[in-house]
Amino acid sequence: MLKHILENVRTKAPIIHNITNYVTVNDCANILLACGASPVMSDDIAEAAEITSICQALNINIGTLNAETRKAMFAAGKKANSCNLPIVLDPVAAGASKIRTETARALLQRVKFTAVKGNISEVKAIAMGTNTTKGVDADLADAITDNNLDKAIVFAKDLASKTGAVIAITGAIDLAADAERVYIMRNGHPMMSRVTGTGCMLSAITAAYLAANPERPLDAVAAAVMAMGLCGERAHARLSKCDGNATYRNYMIDEMYHLDGDTLESGAKYEIR
Amino acid sequence: MLKHILENVRTKAPIIHNITNYVTVNDCANILLACGASPVMSDDIAEAAEITSICQALNINIGTLNAETRKAMFAAGKKANSCNLPIVLDPVAAGASKIRTETARALLQRVKFTAVKGNISEVKAIAMGTNTTKGVDADLADAITDNNLDKAIVFAKDLASKTGAVIAITGAIDLAADAERVYIMRNGHPMMSRVTGTGCMLSAITAAYLAANPERPLDAVAAAVMAMGLCGERAHARLSKCDGNATYRNYMIDEMYHLDGDTLESGAKYEIR
Amino acid sequence: MLKHILENVRTKAPIIHNITNYVTVNDCANILLACGASPVMSDDIAEAAEITSICQALNINIGTLNAETRKAMFAAGKKANSCNLPIVLDPVAAGASKIRTETARALLQRVKFTAVKGNISEVKAIAMGTNTTKGVDADLADAITDNNLDKAIVFAKDLASKTGAVIAITGAIDLAADAERVYIMRNGHPMMSRVTGTGCMLSAITAAYLAANPERPLDAVAAAVMAMGLCGERAHARLSKCDGNATYRNYMIDEMYHLDGDTLESGAKYEIR
Repeated sequence: MLKHILENVRTKAPIIHNITNYVTVNDCANILLACGASPVMSDDIAEAAEITSICQALNINIGTLNAETRKAMFAAGKKANSCNLPIVLDPVAAGASKIRTETARALLQRVKFTAVKGNISEVKAIAMGTNTTKGVDADLADAITDNNLDKAIVFAKDLASKTGAVIAITGAIDLAADAERVYIMRNGHPMMSRVTGTGCMLSAITAAYLAANPERPLDAVAAAVMAMGLCGERAHARLSKCDGNATYRNYMIDEMYHLDGDTLESGAKYEIR
Repeated sequence: MLKHILENVRTKAPIIHNITNYVTVNDCANILLACGASPVMSDDIAEAAEITSICQALNINIGTLNAETRKAMFAAGKKANSCNLPIVLDPVAAGASKIRTETARALLQRVKFTAVKGNISEVKAIAMGTNTTKGVDADLADAITDNNLDKAIVFAKDLASKTGAVIAITGAIDLAADAERVYIMRNGHPMMSRVTGTGCMLSAITAAYLAANPERPLDAVAAAVMAMGLCGERAHARLSKCDGNATYRNYMIDEMYHLDGDTLESGAKYEIR
Repeated sequence: MLKHILENVRTKAPIIHNITNYVTVNDCANILLACGASPVMSDDIAEAAEITSICQALNINIGTLNAETRKAMFAAGKKANSCNLPIVLDPVAAGASKIRTETARALLQRVKFTAVKGNISEVKAIAMGTNTTKGVDADLADAITDNNLDKAIVFAKDLASKTGAVIAITGAIDLAADAERVYIMRNGHPMMSRVTGTGCMLSAITAAYLAANPERPLDAVAAAVMAMGLCGERAHARLSKCDGNATYRNYMIDEMYHLDGDTLESGAKYEIR
């Protein structure tokens, strides 16, 4: 099934509208091209909704939000809803500032998202309004481990039920949950946290996976999470002694470019509960 | 002659003012450095015209335009005209939204451009105001092939005549035309379309080639198009089995860094009509 | 001592708030991760000061300033001062436009900076208000050489005394001075000037080095300058025949990822006067 989901992206080549931050936007564009989709970036209120209407999915990332791009996020989100397009929310550093937490929460209230992807601190911040985010990194005390996994699953399913969105929580263990089912996934490599934008890239390809597989959102989100993690593993295996995080970034995108359905199917490490 | 044009860029080291999108701006800066020029990026209305006045060319790319940067584009364009500097317009995704089409058309009306570079959909949108752009990719039905080449040449020469600008249309076959002559060019590699920003990088170096060769704008634009295409070919030849579009991007810039006049002269594939 | 300074960054893993340009921001984020710090980018007046307050240092880079981000720079700067956080100013292309020179000078007047890092033209512009900057490159006539070194040292120490900030002037020879002492440093490679953002990356890691070594700002700045230069040397040694400035950029960040205290201690080339 993962194989089929990945191949749908390459076959359908969806166009993804990204309202995203300027830090990692180039990597998001290139990994979308790598996975078989096409990127469009536009955050101008004068055109955001119009651009959304010619795309197959919308990816909203609040990484470097400002007053103007916030407007574009709401306008594009409403348009995507009216066009029945999948929408992904990446609430980058929600909890780190009042405006981030509020923007993410307001987006969730006024726009129906297909998926929300964040680390545990970010997802907790939008669920509870707590201000526990330590910059863009997950509050370590809140990381998902085998010890608190059951609790995290309940939290994720509950939030999925309340929002109607698939909730993806990334970390050493990754979760993707709807109200009924949860994927517990163990792909990826710790060095991914030393590359900026691995989370942003995941959000972007999640939008592409959803666009190409609208009938199974949970599976599509899980496939995207494991595709990214697997590329992180495979790229790490390619590193030579002198390579660091810059080369690692390039290799992850390269791996996404070559990733095929069989490789994803055999490399994916998960259980469903 | 191509050799001479390329060498002029390295000798004169022109400073290029870029008002460009935040998606591919880093690649534009690095490829300008690679070809022998120096980049300056500024899109603030408070300084745009002033920055233009200390540069040798201006590159306007509407990829992530907004209300503020639109103002800077017009101000810098007028200043470049009054300073007799070459100006390149890259109407990214013109046709994909009303504001893009209108901005590109308004720029063409109020600013005299030395060259316009786009895919066939973008160039048609600014010529005719049609809304046929499929995101940032060329409408496939409109791609230039050997079958519609004659028609495309007439279109390009006609638009060049009307605007006074060299018209460069990129695709599997690339054209560069003024009112009298057209270059039909066949460099490049299909995989270039899987790297974000190859078009933006081309616009940037086109400005540098024009700055260093003001007496022959058509030839300068054609040289830039073939230099970029040749770097795409040579970078592709360097790829190993695991390399994907991220490494390919880096290798294209690397090839531009090493490209010399003899290599361009012998590798350029073109005819002039 | 350099070893200890570098290791403090890896041990303390400071979070650095960057208000920086969109051209090189991705490289700044990745090199901060490479050196052991964590980046946060935010330039929205609605949150800038709040973000600063959860970080350990602030890096202000005026590379693509605009009316909105200027406000964020002042707000974050004041907050950093009230929190006693180190602040770095990178006055990119100060002297190239009135608004840049004025912004840099106003920042210096209203915010107490721990360090200012620029090329000689930029630093002269903020010291004297002269408009001699040639784009983002140092005015060649003003480069620091062995011939004008003594004069440059007096200038740097004097500016350090007036501003209370460590003054770092980069070029073929790099200087870092407070009112009493000056480091004269000779690391780096000329090809670094063909990569966009080497200066921006240096400013970013300087903020990290200061955050982790608050008791010795001059030594911390000098360590950062030499760390960057040494990575430039080591990355250059890794280049193969076909590699150009794109691969060189990646290798510099890779080298920072692997740089350890012993390597810095033995590779640093400097004298203190």
